[in-house]
Amino acid sequence: MIHRLQQKERYDVIIIGGGPSGLQAAIYTTRAKLKTLVLWTSSKKSVLNRIPYIGNYLGFPNGLNGEELISFGIAHVEKYGGFVQDEEVIVAEPMEENEDDYMYCVKTPKQKYCTKTIIIATGLGILRAGIKGEANFENKGLSYCVICDGYFFQHKKVAVIGNKNFAAEKVIELFSYTKNITLFTQGQKPDIAQKLLNTLKDKNIIPRQDKIVEIVGKEKVEAVTFENGEQENFDGIFIGVGTASSLSFAKSLGVETSGNFLNVKGPLGETNVKGIFAAGDCVGAPLQISKAVGEGAEAGLGVIKYIQGGVHVDHEHS
Amino acid sequence: MIHRLQQKERYDVIIIGGGPSGLQAAIYTTRAKLKTLVLWTSSKKSVLNRIPYIGNYLGFPNGLNGEELISFGIAHVEKYGGFVQDEEVIVAEPMEENEDDYMYCVKTPKQKYCTKTIIIATGLGILRAGIKGEANFENKGLSYCVICDGYFFQHKKVAVIGNKNFAAEKVIELFSYTKNITLFTQGQKPDIAQKLLNTLKDKNIIPRQDKIVEIVGKEKVEAVTFENGEQENFDGIFIGVGTASSLSFAKSLGVETSGNFLNVKGPLGETNVKGIFAAGDCVGAPLQISKAVGEGAEAGLGVIKYIQGGVHVDHEHS
Repeated sequence: MIHRLQQKERYDVIIIGGGPSGLQAAIYTTRAKLKTLVLWTSSKKSVLNRIPYIGNYLGFPNGLNGEELISFGIAHVEKYGGFVQDEEVIVAEPMEENEDDYMYCVKTPKQKYCTKTIIIATGLGILRAGIKGEANFENKGLSYCVICDGYFFQHKKVAVIGNKNFAAEKVIELFSYTKNITLFTQGQKPDIAQKLLNTLKDKNIIPRQDKIVEIVGKEKVEAVTFENGEQENFDGIFIGVGTASSLSFAKSLGVETSGNFLNVKGPLGETNVKGIFAAGDCVGAPLQISKAVGEGAEAGLGVIKYIQGGVHVDHEHS
Repeated sequence: MIHRLQQKERYDVIIIGGGPSGLQAAIYTTRAKLKTLVLWTSSKKSVLNRIPYIGNYLGFPNGLNGEELISFGIAHVEKYGGFVQDEEVIVAEPMEENEDDYMYCVKTPKQKYCTKTIIIATGLGILRAGIKGEANFENKGLSYCVICDGYFFQHKKVAVIGNKNFAAEKVIELFSYTKNITLFTQGQKPDIAQKLLNTLKDKNIIPRQDKIVEIVGKEKVEAVTFENGEQENFDGIFIGVGTASSLSFAKSLGVETSGNFLNVKGPLGETNVKGIFAAGDCVGAPLQISKAVGEGAEAGLGVIKYIQGGVHVDHEHS
């Protein structure tokens, strides 16, 4: 049975990330009458939210703080009819079957959205869990990407580390390969949507709050050491701390990367994948608000050009 | 006799242009404690000044006008100790003899400044005079650049068209090649600094207000037709309308260009010339404030990196 998309699930552009680049992009796309959805997490951990004083952004000689800039941006997008939702994006991927031009699918714990284009503007996700031994075992039993490496852990005993939806989603992705999965929240209370917790529970997975302090092994991962000194053997470890990063979206959408950054191929934020654009810190240094704003405008214009065709944006200033 | 530079004439960076990219660049360089001078012309003809409503710049959901954005930017630069002067730049060129690291020289009708670096952020200069036949004779006796083409008009009879300092400066540049020069202000009152007018007068050149309506010739420029229908023979015509543009600075500094735009070679606004950076509309489309702001930040960081060495700017957000 084909599930026809509901109107509220369809967008011209979904922008993942509500920082300066994402909001600036949305200002452009909404003004161009594109149906625009910005998805962001208002988590206190967001880099921009934490900035107490922005002293170097043109227009604000007396400075402003990160929360103010975000709230101005949200008001701006909403004023022109765009939607800004406080929902964490867990997965962004191609639709299994395209419906008209809706080629991509973006999932949050609440909802699945379909869209013609995506702008990845997630900033720099914090990927490392900061556990002793973590760096030594990368690609030797330790991975940050189930889509990339899950296959190597078929029927193995695997640990997933993280306390948010992103970690829970990694566990669910791993179900394709193994049932022997333990989710460690590193001493944190799980901050995971009930729906995802229920899915885990159906597979008999209850998050454990034990804190792993070291990863050990000779050639490859063999075990983890807990805070109390006890050890437990594992064949593999997936790090899923924080929220989904630009790199995980890049992987699932097929966007080329260089190190921690997404590769932009054109002057308007184009990536190597049709309809997928990127802007801001996730495409590279300098990690500056002004630079992110500039790239957001470019990616917004890139989407407008992609959807509307040869729009003459060059001579427009306001 | 070597004229030692006075302190007030020396800068770490001179930014030509007081639009979004120039001011944003200056915000960065002043905050980094570089001695910064922004030179701009408050002429009502400036593109930004004329914008009545900027509706697409992050931070201003209710919009603002071009003059407001400029005044915020100037206040911002001055707050951190930068200098913003309302002076038209006529020439920017390498110093004949470097004094320490002061490699470049920027001249206005009032003053000569020396600097270690230059950011060209002039926006798009208006070059064409809009005279019938103008496009047909380009490089066939008609030129926009004395430095490029003056040599071909040795001892010839040449007209210069324009009513500002920039046109007067073209006449003065032409003195190296010919004395037979007429300056036409196209029906406008000359808007030229007295000092420059005096230099012209010393060479017996008094601006004529006759308005040229057509350029005529068979293979190349032969004559001009005035509004009253009369004609006068000329061997060559130099167009010097408006103010000096990014292209004229690029020529005199050796910066590579593509069409009307300056070529940027690096991620921080670097051009092919050491110490010369460029940002904003003059480096290419999209001609948008946000994009100019982003590039201004990059060029500012480029100058900081060039002067201070390996500054860690990547992880700074405010």
